[in-house]
Amino acid sequence: MATNLHDKAYELARALRESDEFQTLKALHEEVEEDDVASRMLTNFRNIQLELQDKQMQGEQPSEEEITQAQKQYEMVQQHEVISKLMEQEQKMSTVIGDMNKIITEPLESLYGSPEDQGQGEQG
Amino acid sequence: MATNLHDKAYELARALRESDEFQTLKALHEEVEEDDVASRMLTNFRNIQLELQDKQMQGEQPSEEEITQAQKQYEMVQQHEVISKLMEQEQKMSTVIGDMNKIITEPLESLYGSPEDQGQGEQG
Ligand SMILES: [Ca+2]
Ligand SMILES: [Ca+2]
Repeated sequence: MATNLHDKAYELARALRESDEFQTLKALHEEVEEDDVASRMLTNFRNIQLELQDKQMQGEQPSEEEITQAQKQYEMVQQHEVISKLMEQEQKMSTVIGDMNKIITEPLESLYGSPEDQGQGEQG
Repeated sequence: MATNLHDKAYELARALRESDEFQTLKALHEEVEEDDVASRMLTNFRNIQLELQDKQMQGEQPSEEEITQAQKQYEMVQQHEVISKLMEQEQKMSTVIGDMNKIITEPLESLYGSPEDQGQGEQG
């Protein structure tokens, strides 16, 4: 990779690390990690989500019991103040990363067109 | 998004656009676009690749005829000097983007662990 590209990528990573969005996420993450009950609740929730995702990717239908269990876990984590804040902050970070990626990949889209452009191209 | 993050993302996009890797890719892309025969050959090849991908994602087995057709098209584009250079350059660009993403997402991996770390975590 060209030196300038390398340097600019590191500068962006540093800006991300120093951003309010990341610092808030990091603090909430640590708060959950330090709380055994919260930490276990979140791990359990994530595992259930991953299992459901796996099933969907394999084209399997999750059972009613699994769906009910996932909903119950979701309500539990939503009611937990720190975990719900963490999940909200993860959503914000995901938006930031998405916006960053749009900016960074703009040069490539100028060559190949964005996915939306390609959709229009197929119809028109 | 924080102003600094925004600015740094734009600086990285500019560095990408100005990089040799991108400029070479752009020139090859334009060379193919301006050549009707090459352009049609590449579009045809990409469409066949996309159809095969679609089938794979839907869990369908492509027919022998489709596989033979895809191989023939692949050999044709490989033998075309400009298209084969373009595809080689796309591979290089893909590596650059991958390396960039590793650097940029390092802050998040420091929170969540890289996929490799998670694999080890499940076993250990
Ligand atoms: Ca188009
Ligand atoms: Ca681990």
